[in-house]
Amino acid sequence: MSQTIKIGKIATLLAMLSDEEGRLFEEMLDQVSFCQGKVGSMNTQKVISAVETAVKRHQLIEENRYRETHALYHAILEALEGVTRGQLAIGEMMRTVGLRFAVVRGKPYKEAGEGEWLAVAFYGTIGAPVKGLEHEAIGLGINHI
Amino acid sequence: MSQTIKIGKIATLLAMLSDEEGRLFEEMLDQVSFCQGKVGSMNTQKVISAVETAVKRHQLIEENRYRETHALYHAILEALEGVTRGQLAIGEMMRTVGLRFAVVRGKPYKEAGEGEWLAVAFYGTIGAPVKGLEHEAIGLGINHI
Amino acid sequence: MSQTIKIGKIATLLAMLSDEEGRLFEEMLDQVSFCQGKVGSMNTQKVISAVETAVKRHQLIEENRYRETHALYHAILEALEGVTRGQLAIGEMMRTVGLRFAVVRGKPYKEAGEGEWLAVAFYGTIGAPVKGLEHEAIGLGINHI
Amino acid sequence: MSQTIKIGKIATLLAMLSDEEGRLFEEMLDQVSFCQGKVGSMNTQKVISAVETAVKRHQLIEENRYRETHALYHAILEALEGVTRGQLAIGEMMRTVGLRFAVVRGKPYKEAGEGEWLAVAFYGTIGAPVKGLEHEAIGLGINHI
Amino acid sequence: MSQTIKIGKIATLLAMLSDEEGRLFEEMLDQVSFCQGKVGSMNTQKVISAVETAVKRHQLIEENRYRETHALYHAILEALEGVTRGQLAIGEMMRTVGLRFAVVRGKPYKEAGEGEWLAVAFYGTIGAPVKGLEHEAIGLGINHI
Amino acid sequence: MSQTIKIGKIATLLAMLSDEEGRLFEEMLDQVSFCQGKVGSMNTQKVISAVETAVKRHQLIEENRYRETHALYHAILEALEGVTRGQLAIGEMMRTVGLRFAVVRGKPYKEAGEGEWLAVAFYGTIGAPVKGLEHEAIGLGINHI
Repeated sequence: MSQTIKIGKIATLLAMLSDEEGRLFEEMLDQVSFCQGKVGSMNTQKVISAVETAVKRHQLIEENRYRETHALYHAILEALEGVTRGQLAIGEMMRTVGLRFAVVRGKPYKEAGEGEWLAVAFYGTIGAPVKGLEHEAIGLGINHI
Repeated sequence: MSQTIKIGKIATLLAMLSDEEGRLFEEMLDQVSFCQGKVGSMNTQKVISAVETAVKRHQLIEENRYRETHALYHAILEALEGVTRGQLAIGEMMRTVGLRFAVVRGKPYKEAGEGEWLAVAFYGTIGAPVKGLEHEAIGLGINHI
Repeated sequence: MSQTIKIGKIATLLAMLSDEEGRLFEEMLDQVSFCQGKVGSMNTQKVISAVETAVKRHQLIEENRYRETHALYHAILEALEGVTRGQLAIGEMMRTVGLRFAVVRGKPYKEAGEGEWLAVAFYGTIGAPVKGLEHEAIGLGINHI
Repeated sequence: MSQTIKIGKIATLLAMLSDEEGRLFEEMLDQVSFCQGKVGSMNTQKVISAVETAVKRHQLIEENRYRETHALYHAILEALEGVTRGQLAIGEMMRTVGLRFAVVRGKPYKEAGEGEWLAVAFYGTIGAPVKGLEHEAIGLGINHI
Repeated sequence: MSQTIKIGKIATLLAMLSDEEGRLFEEMLDQVSFCQGKVGSMNTQKVISAVETAVKRHQLIEENRYRETHALYHAILEALEGVTRGQLAIGEMMRTVGLRFAVVRGKPYKEAGEGEWLAVAFYGTIGAPVKGLEHEAIGLGINHI
Repeated sequence: MSQTIKIGKIATLLAMLSDEEGRLFEEMLDQVSFCQGKVGSMNTQKVISAVETAVKRHQLIEENRYRETHALYHAILEALEGVTRGQLAIGEMMRTVGLRFAVVRGKPYKEAGEGEWLAVAFYGTIGAPVKGLEHEAIGLGINHI
């Protein structure tokens, strides 16, 4: 088995690159569905909601299909682990995030039976609730759908 | 205060892009020191060691300076949180990783007083100890040095 | 030493079975004290309180005895680990629970010196704050009292 | 949407009840596939392997289909969170487990589109590596497949 | 290399001893900078803020220097891990803390190149939000600055 | 209710002070039972065992009484959380500890009904497996017995 479409890499580049830089990787997007967004918050709930709302608005998952909601939710949480490194709490721990995110849906594996998977990537900053007192953070979650 | 050199983004691109893709971002490397490497293991200790060894071989940190070793160690652990999402254990949890990594040392902030920082990035796969039964993973840790 | 009264199993069955199903196990209840309750919330604090209040109302522990409160608190938290799997937060992580719970107090071990122990069990659903977008969850905590 | 077949409850009862007690719930098994097993170990890896091996031997999942292996793996880990409550390590933390487990595959939701899900349940004891110095533990993990 | 000034021990004694007891260790304070304070709260954010505010008021770190804020923040979180043991949440988990804290800045190592480090110590009580239903807790975090 | 004997403070001082310093607090020891020891290891299991062995050798708990073993085990783990801050693993995470420990058994509360409690304290160093590349660490666990 081999991974032919790197949905995680695509999602990370979408979240991390400027529009101009992203153009260099445009052909990567041909074989996947995706959406992008931004969220700044001290509230974990709002970060999760921002991604879920963007995904539904772009019809990347079926809104009332629980198995798709479930797959997305766990991919978001796994991506947040990378951003928050150890505890999912943000504001409760006196920190804030400013994040761009991307969600990619596609078929990463050659075998048809492996079906579709989701990748959720965050890139941005985490830090004190004071402008500039922050550093970069990244996170990626992957799940079968 | 503003972040002028994105050491986390640079480290992630170094770990994630192919040599050819990386060439598009070469000028980013002018203002930082960095090293790269690869590690495949079921053993968290070996992953940590692989990064530490590469960093010391490239003299990115002073080998017997504890404050630099300490800064690097915590940056590695934070990057591993993104890769492992919740528990740092790898083989103990019956999974294996195949990772490329990059460590970048530089001055991300305009103010001279902010000094040098380290970014450690991992990109690769995590999964069952069976070739192909794996998906992508990413992690980024940042620390002042 | 051998465990003669399975307080964890009794608590789990009390939390999980319908009244009718529970009748099949009624004799198990003869040698223990117990109470039951229900709680639906996005708030971890409310779930903990619901159990503590039920336990005190049924005088399963002595209300102002800290060592009993302490034993109960840790048993509740351990049971919640099973329900939440990794992070105790509920609403902060954009999820909600609908749980039945049971607390059993008894002497699980033959040796008189082992004294009394507490079992706290939860059974119900966890999921998105949308009716039906949820799956089952269970948790059991045991402590000496 | 409503949950018509409680695969988590079925898995828990299969893992927890004696053969005789289980007979009272036999009709529950008509609409699901399942397997059962036992494992005693200080080694998290062995516990995970024991479940994976039983599931493959009973052809409950397709052995070389990664999406099914992935679904099972995460369900096992979530079930282990309930057993270990906070840290997945067993022997490293000087404790041992003696567990019965059950895996159930079925369609818990009325809507055909929700498809198949997996439930993994553990029930048994956790404690010091000395016979009898142990108490009950339970864990349940659920995932879409 | 050897540790000649034990900033962690000094911080712990400052947080734990009464004024009278502390006098026995007064000479330890000659070679370090430090500050002390108190905080009682169910809110993790308030605990973090109380320490940050005290540190800035005593000019133990440079207020707008992010690398110092970053060093302090991680030392506080590590100290809170000892107090909360497993989950940083306080009120969300239906518990409250009453803590004394001390922050010490100094040069623990003989080698000049090791530079300055920070120690943050907490000592006090954690327990139910009812006076007296609580026990002692301690935490220590150390970071290079 | 008020805490009249601070078993956590006593345990911490026993683990942290030199013999000479400890003499200043000798009268604190009159109302409690205690033992002390040392352990250096990369192995969490060995650290736990060292404490359990010392406690049993000094007959601070009844060796084959599970409820006492259980109380001690959880107090040790809670103390280790303070030492390791986030993950209990030591060697697996490429670090080593050199710790002194003390266990105190006593009646911290005025009310007779609150009975006996245990405090486990660690103090020492944690760091890279290279002499001197380490900093201080502390941990305290308290449990009713």
